[in-house]
Amino acid sequence: LVNTFGAQVLYDFTAEPGNNELSVREGETITITNQTIGGGWIEAKNSRGEVGLVPEDYIEPFISGGNAAPLDLSFFDSHMPTPTSNGNDPWAVFDNNASGGFSNNWAAQPEGTETGKTSSNAWHSGGHGHPQAYQGPGAEDDEWDEEWDDVKSSGGYAESEAGEGGAINRGGAHGSSMKIALNKFPGFSKSGPELYLLSKQPAKGTKLPVYTGEVGPVWAYPDYQLDCVVADPKKGSKMYGLKSYIEYQVIPTTTNKPVNHRYKHFDWLYERLLEKFGSAIPIPSLPDKQVTGRFEEEFIKMRMERLQGWMSRMCRHPVISSSEVFQLFLSYKDEKDWKMGKRKAEKDETVGVMVFSTIEPEGLPDLDMIEVEQKCEQFNRFTRAMDDGVKDLLTIGNEHWKRCTGPLPKEYQRIGKAFQNLSSVFISSGYEGEAALTDALTAAGKTYEEIAQMVAEQPKKDLHFLMETNNEYKGLLGCFPDTIGVHKAAIEKVKEADKLVAAGKITPSDKITMSKRASIMSYSLQAEMNHFHSNRIYDYNRVMQQYLEQQVKFYEMIAEKLRHAHSQFTTM
Amino acid sequence: LVNTFGAQVLYDFTAEPGNNELSVREGETITITNQTIGGGWIEAKNSRGEVGLVPEDYIEPFISGGNAAPLDLSFFDSHMPTPTSNGNDPWAVFDNNASGGFSNNWAAQPEGTETGKTSSNAWHSGGHGHPQAYQGPGAEDDEWDEEWDDVKSSGGYAESEAGEGGAINRGGAHGSSMKIALNKFPGFSKSGPELYLLSKQPAKGTKLPVYTGEVGPVWAYPDYQLDCVVADPKKGSKMYGLKSYIEYQVIPTTTNKPVNHRYKHFDWLYERLLEKFGSAIPIPSLPDKQVTGRFEEEFIKMRMERLQGWMSRMCRHPVISSSEVFQLFLSYKDEKDWKMGKRKAEKDETVGVMVFSTIEPEGLPDLDMIEVEQKCEQFNRFTRAMDDGVKDLLTIGNEHWKRCTGPLPKEYQRIGKAFQNLSSVFISSGYEGEAALTDALTAAGKTYEEIAQMVAEQPKKDLHFLMETNNEYKGLLGCFPDTIGVHKAAIEKVKEADKLVAAGKITPSDKITMSKRASIMSYSLQAEMNHFHSNRIYDYNRVMQQYLEQQVKFYEMIAEKLRHAHSQFTTM
Repeated sequence: LVNTFGAQVLYDFTAEPGNNELSVREGETITITNQTIGGGWIEAKNSRGEVGLVPEDYIEPFISGGNAAPLDLSFFDSHMPTPTSNGNDPWAVFDNNASGGFSNNWAAQPEGTETGKTSSNAWHSGGHGHPQAYQGPGAEDDEWDEEWDDVKSSGGYAESEAGEGGAINRGGAHGSSMKIALNKFPGFSKSGPELYLLSKQPAKGTKLPVYTGEVGPVWAYPDYQLDCVVADPKKGSKMYGLKSYIEYQVIPTTTNKPVNHRYKHFDWLYERLLEKFGSAIPIPSLPDKQVTGRFEEEFIKMRMERLQGWMSRMCRHPVISSSEVFQLFLSYKDEKDWKMGKRKAEKDETVGVMVFSTIEPEGLPDLDMIEVEQKCEQFNRFTRAMDDGVKDLLTIGNEHWKRCTGPLPKEYQRIGKAFQNLSSVFISSGYEGEAALTDALTAAGKTYEEIAQMVAEQPKKDLHFLMETNNEYKGLLGCFPDTIGVHKAAIEKVKEADKLVAAGKITPSDKITMSKRASIMSYSLQAEMNHFHSNRIYDYNRVMQQYLEQQVKFYEMIAEKLRHAHSQFTTM
Repeated sequence: LVNTFGAQVLYDFTAEPGNNELSVREGETITITNQTIGGGWIEAKNSRGEVGLVPEDYIEPFISGGNAAPLDLSFFDSHMPTPTSNGNDPWAVFDNNASGGFSNNWAAQPEGTETGKTSSNAWHSGGHGHPQAYQGPGAEDDEWDEEWDDVKSSGGYAESEAGEGGAINRGGAHGSSMKIALNKFPGFSKSGPELYLLSKQPAKGTKLPVYTGEVGPVWAYPDYQLDCVVADPKKGSKMYGLKSYIEYQVIPTTTNKPVNHRYKHFDWLYERLLEKFGSAIPIPSLPDKQVTGRFEEEFIKMRMERLQGWMSRMCRHPVISSSEVFQLFLSYKDEKDWKMGKRKAEKDETVGVMVFSTIEPEGLPDLDMIEVEQKCEQFNRFTRAMDDGVKDLLTIGNEHWKRCTGPLPKEYQRIGKAFQNLSSVFISSGYEGEAALTDALTAAGKTYEEIAQMVAEQPKKDLHFLMETNNEYKGLLGCFPDTIGVHKAAIEKVKEADKLVAAGKITPSDKITMSKRASIMSYSLQAEMNHFHSNRIYDYNRVMQQYLEQQVKFYEMIAEKLRHAHSQFTTM
């Protein structure tokens, strides 16, 4: 059944175009036509008969006729499935052909190529996203055109209200598993790993050494840590101004010479990196193409912030940052240089599993298959567990965000109003010597209204970065199933080696080569995991410090305001 | 329509006997059988088929079959009518026979003798009270027996959960309007005020002088401010232990000699004071007889706290504290002395409006009727406005109480758990040099769990006293309609004086006497209002200071905890 109820709009909400949303204004009365949308949305109709989606926590329903069952606004949130329990599991696709060696307590869950979808969208749908907001693979394919980085014109929008800036744009990075699948990524084709394991051709391209560090196998780190700044977005236009796009400045700390790139250039770089390094190194996908803000400035700001985050992470990776294609992107001399470099990169043959042919463990002994498999299992377990933890934190953080920007400040405001109201009643008493109390009471009331404001604005100051970092890691972790999957497939192949020899499909020496190369792959994976761990420790230290620091400031400021309010009451 | 839904129990709730409540345990699944109870309650059935009332904010419903409309738990609270808008208006009973002189924008609202009911019960039903919890006049009459102060045995109850101690026992003082009505209080009988206005007999009993103070007419205040301590409740029993009762020690600061009193003695005192002073001085009624706690200790503690508050207020009143009956209550020598004094007090003839015959304005000029009426109107307007403000604050305070003891700490706890969970995932990485981060992350998680605890316990430390004070004032303000009503009735009589003379019902000199006495009544009312105002200013200064002081401590402690959590992250 779909009951319809009247509801009061608590806060302004401005619809995004093309998302079936309905703009509503505070105090407006609407009719809820469908409450079973989920993902934090309900369908409503306004007085003009327009129907569309509205964030459930923006409205407060009342019983029409007094006997209809009211909506539960906190319902969908509190019951919002955590990404890992909603049956969409980026790891499941590998668990399907998993060897018994892999503990797979998720086997019961559905598989398929769409696995990246919901999980990568979890924070989004946890926030103000809704089903329509997600664009499936097909939709993404449609977008492989000039439109990518066109700014979705958002018309004459009013300013967004507190918290909104944070609640939107949370599409996050899509798990790249799906993206790889789309690209017919060699790692998946039956011939996948053996392409390298049995390859006879000599390795082409730059060598990628792996050394022994304190923590085990590590990549070769440059003396100078590359970084870059993404800044100064400029609106360009083509087709006589019919289409507009944004061009960002990318300034490498090495040359300090800015180069211009459009979103689609970033996406081109992503595709190259994914193709070339994807089976050895998880390449986090770019910020959602679908990211849209309440209005253009916000949209551009948010996308730039995330492009910056993505570029910095790429710069921090020793293998990627030193790669030819990445260097080209950062420091091409002119249009011609760029075009030529592009063509060359697209012709690169050392892609997919063949990247392992360029990896050279320096003076590291061959590993036996038991050890290789154990390492692989360990990494799979860890990344999976961390993926759960991160998504859990994102879900809770998102609910907290809603509370801090919705009901909580509203309540402090009402407390403040109640004090001020009582104060004005007292003023009306006509009794002498009232002023001292009424002034203090009014001030206390105003203080609680200020606190309401602070509470509503705080998430942008602290929770935002905690969410952004975890969202970034969610995207990164979403890539591991692909990377680890390649290794698992290789291990399976080596296990079959004896059969293949018996069947005369390969020679005994091929078999030795295969396990040697599986060992090389394992060193590469270990180096990558150690890189991931050291970055993770740095990132979480930083973000937690930042978060707690802001939280301390927040509570101290409240205490200070209340201390001042307290001081205005005359002690007797 | 009454849909039935499944629901999950969020917190333990232990039913009170005789209140149609249903005990439920956290995690238990129940069926909601009636959501239209209101007052913060819903009716539910447990797996054993037992049906009863459960606080709506203790459960979280889920859609059965996925298409039924879920309950809105926040609905009844947010829409809970503020007492003054729920059609029950203690003032209305007077507005019905109000002279045009009285601005009566509530005229549309229902009248009747039950007006005191819902309004006096507002905080209660805002809290965990429900219709059944309120005892109407009839029920109260039934209680004029030995049972009054018998402890309602509450069986083998578990400890109450956070906040519960505050959410219960909020029955508050009943507006005494009804009580007076029950007692056939002279002020209401047609012959009411003229009993005094036209009385020929000389005044009996102690004189009650009214002087001119800085703020206008004031009572005669004693040099020494009387006060007393209500303490050391002892359980007594009678009928061979079949019935038990509580005896409290009352220790006046004057004699310091304790006397013992049961609740029914307090109630007897209340009745005497109401009968003798009720038309000149609002007598707040005693803490609800219906007050019951989750378990005996809590019940006794709460009742004692409120008896203390009531006694202190009586002690602070110059007229009441110096009255013979009050002195008897505070300092009777022995059982015989008490019994004799009781009989004497019950025989007192200077009760009802006749109390005005003992009031003597010292050297104050007679007031003309215009001024008398204006004063009366002003007081009526003010007390009515304050009643609204106080009830508003109680409603909001009650909602805030629920949030602080319900969803908010739950959320902080989940944040804390998420941090700790992430920490244990990190520990499992097997990467070296992880400890510094994981220790700090675990500590941060524990900190948020501690904050959750603090948040849940805070209302008992600050909001409780703010609520108690306002509840006390709600009770006090509930008495003003009676007191002011007596004055209004007198004014009406004096206005009719000419007609009465013309009709030969009274002599011209009677008419002069009437307006003289109306003037005396006005001085008495002004003295009482000035007493009320000075107390109000003192009380609200004190409670606001106390509240803000605790709030400051609270936020400072949180900031301190977070500062410590922050310090544990290694800066890089």
